[in-house]
Amino acid sequence: MRLHFTKMHGLGNDFVVIDAISQRLDMTPELSRRLADRRFGIGCDQVLLVEAARLPGTEFHYRIFNADGSEVEQCGNGARCFARFVRDQGLTRSDDIAVGTAAGPIRLKAQPDGQISVDMGVPQLDPAAIPFQARRRAAAYDLWQGCSALRIGAVSMGNPHAVLHVEDIAQAPVAELGPRIECDPRFPRRVNVGFMQIIDAAHIRLRVWERGVGETLACGTGACAAVVIGRLWGELDEAVEVTLPGGALQIQWAGEGASVTMTGPAARVFEGDIEL
Amino acid sequence: MRLHFTKMHGLGNDFVVIDAISQRLDMTPELSRRLADRRFGIGCDQVLLVEAARLPGTEFHYRIFNADGSEVEQCGNGARCFARFVRDQGLTRSDDIAVGTAAGPIRLKAQPDGQISVDMGVPQLDPAAIPFQARRRAAAYDLWQGCSALRIGAVSMGNPHAVLHVEDIAQAPVAELGPRIECDPRFPRRVNVGFMQIIDAAHIRLRVWERGVGETLACGTGACAAVVIGRLWGELDEAVEVTLPGGALQIQWAGEGASVTMTGPAARVFEGDIEL
Repeated sequence: MRLHFTKMHGLGNDFVVIDAISQRLDMTPELSRRLADRRFGIGCDQVLLVEAARLPGTEFHYRIFNADGSEVEQCGNGARCFARFVRDQGLTRSDDIAVGTAAGPIRLKAQPDGQISVDMGVPQLDPAAIPFQARRRAAAYDLWQGCSALRIGAVSMGNPHAVLHVEDIAQAPVAELGPRIECDPRFPRRVNVGFMQIIDAAHIRLRVWERGVGETLACGTGACAAVVIGRLWGELDEAVEVTLPGGALQIQWAGEGASVTMTGPAARVFEGDIEL
Repeated sequence: MRLHFTKMHGLGNDFVVIDAISQRLDMTPELSRRLADRRFGIGCDQVLLVEAARLPGTEFHYRIFNADGSEVEQCGNGARCFARFVRDQGLTRSDDIAVGTAAGPIRLKAQPDGQISVDMGVPQLDPAAIPFQARRRAAAYDLWQGCSALRIGAVSMGNPHAVLHVEDIAQAPVAELGPRIECDPRFPRRVNVGFMQIIDAAHIRLRVWERGVGETLACGTGACAAVVIGRLWGELDEAVEVTLPGGALQIQWAGEGASVTMTGPAARVFEGDIEL
């Protein structure tokens, strides 16, 4: 069969997006791996499937498959590409789109400038929820690495994050400290590690070491985590621009108990047809 | 403008192939880099342009652009994809295709099983032609690395190659010795390094460290170089199957003064359209 797809990216985090409403597709881990392969297939970080709605009050259902074939619950960069896709393809005219995912319904808003806002949920700061081993909740923790301690913030955005302050993002020891913090025994499910340089209260630069992946161009949950921690440290405003290696995201967080909103671009790169 | 392209690969060495006869295209280093980018573009090792013939006696002209934007002269895996492309697209009905390249005309033959044979030219064994610093031509040379000598063969297939014999291809120290031999001062233009395990006189296994690139899935000139050296060492027949990490090539070499013929597959993966 011939499968039509669209190649998209959000700040360099790239996706093969498939309309599985007008095309019938039986997704398998093998097919996901084949589509995601950059030399023998199309090539992407994740495959996004747009399906008919399953949950009441939603317009679509949206599924995400990793390049290794596993299905995942959420991806902020993917959600922006999903929203742009359903609007560009004429599958909806809404600019406020309710979508069902494996993690429950999410809302996506198309902004007048073409950027997409995603409700990223309420950050969890309780150590047990992250999970992170600490006696009590704090804005900053000392994480001992050998004979010296690193000051970190810790938060869950659905996935665990540690955030460190650095003076100069270009010189941040991402490849050196990233894997050591990722595997620190106090993070029993390991952790994503953000290195944050604060430019001013409305602008940070960020590099993220992603758990199980390494350094990436743009980590949506990492940008949210950094702004939450920077706000807890009293250094950031409610709306912050986060410059990542792949580009910029706008993060908004009113504070404790509120959802984090992430706004950013979604780019279409090309259209294709592959024979399966 | 909207550009139509075909994504292809030869043993995992992958190409964006563009019909620049029916489509007008001004190729620039920027465009080549953009098309080759695996996240922000289509993604490939090289961009192949199929142009109208320039040289007498040829049907087409064929140009190759690296992912860094530079134009290169020859690529065996690309030549096979080129031949399959012009036949599949109905641009020719020949099964013996003469093509102009920056390095002069080449001949490509489509086999009945769909594989493509490429005349890879006459191997140059004279040290000055490789270039390799040696007092006189020999079938094997001692290359000193610190206190121990490696036995290597050296040959040019249009580009310089060193070939080593290994007992077990899986354990070959490609990442360790590859860069050291590549930069050995006796190879003034550096060198590609092949690690060859001889299974029998008609079958070798090969891994190649490519100059400026690192280990690759399949190096066409590397397969030719290994068979030439193995023949000079008296260990191989005239026709040899070379198993590379990306798949198998058939190499044929009658001996001194004859051209090497490489036969292998060329796969179409998908068709696409990109807005430039």
